[in-house]
Amino acid sequence: MSEPIQALPPVRYTPIGVIRSNHQAAEQTPIQPVYARRCPGRAEVLPEHVEGLRDLEGFSHLILLYHFHRAGPAQLIVQPFTDDRPRGVFSTRHPQRPNPIGLSVVRLLRIEGGTLHLEDVDILDGTPLLDIKPYIRRFDGAAEPRGGWTETIDEQTAHRRGLRGFQGGGSS
Amino acid sequence: MSEPIQALPPVRYTPIGVIRSNHQAAEQTPIQPVYARRCPGRAEVLPEHVEGLRDLEGFSHLILLYHFHRAGPAQLIVQPFTDDRPRGVFSTRHPQRPNPIGLSVVRLLRIEGGTLHLEDVDILDGTPLLDIKPYIRRFDGAAEPRGGWTETIDEQTAHRRGLRGFQGGGSS
Repeated sequence: MSEPIQALPPVRYTPIGVIRSNHQAAEQTPIQPVYARRCPGRAEVLPEHVEGLRDLEGFSHLILLYHFHRAGPAQLIVQPFTDDRPRGVFSTRHPQRPNPIGLSVVRLLRIEGGTLHLEDVDILDGTPLLDIKPYIRRFDGAAEPRGGWTETIDEQTAHRRGLRGFQGGGSS
Repeated sequence: MSEPIQALPPVRYTPIGVIRSNHQAAEQTPIQPVYARRCPGRAEVLPEHVEGLRDLEGFSHLILLYHFHRAGPAQLIVQPFTDDRPRGVFSTRHPQRPNPIGLSVVRLLRIEGGTLHLEDVDILDGTPLLDIKPYIRRFDGAAEPRGGWTETIDEQTAHRRGLRGFQGGGSS
């Protein structure tokens, strides 16, 4: 476990589809599904990948990985949406990351062909979709997680600021 | 929400570091942190990104996104490690995905400079690291998730097969 870091060649991914939502403006898009309750959306998967959606119907939640295609340049210290203090980017979910990969846990309502009908979608319309993973409680549900600086923000403030001016969703 | 899918250009990411672990052979690496309890590991972050680790210490769990650099070619139907029936790849966490991005929720023990000391590491030694996100309960903990086909596998079988011959870890 102790060699120095070898050369790390870049990796190249081709989107498997696109995310559709009612969020057209980044500055009015809720920052997380918890602030986008009941926001509908769709994942449109390219025909060549549709067969890979088999067996997904039984899952209530999916993990979407996507490319923050409208994020500005990476910053190591960012201003979180829910806090007044600047924070290290890896301690936040801010889009301006060295590799701008977004992650959202969304609800799966139903599947029609290559279209996944979703809820709790906090993702900008037109976002390139990189991967879909099933949310599996025993893999993804950390027991008693401690949330670092985010636990210093009260829920009401986080909710108000997390909505980012979005008016359509209810509280959770 | 209804235009056809536009051209989706490929995206290119440069690893921010590398994951170190005791798992040298893919076929003996546990498939998920839940089957890698107490397995130590490290994330070695390149010097130019270390400033972005600020404020991460207070989190007990991190989400690591990484490149499955030793995965075989993508397959739309795969044989899950824990099941006998072939499944659509997007309903599994199998590495042979169209975009081979891995996701693990691991425990953060401590940070020394650019080195994150981790536990529950189910990741092959030398794996290129793409992103680190804080695990935040209100974002990442789905309430009452349904686990689709994975719920048809009893926990004992899943555990035995999830270890993949790995002998070092205990049960959770």
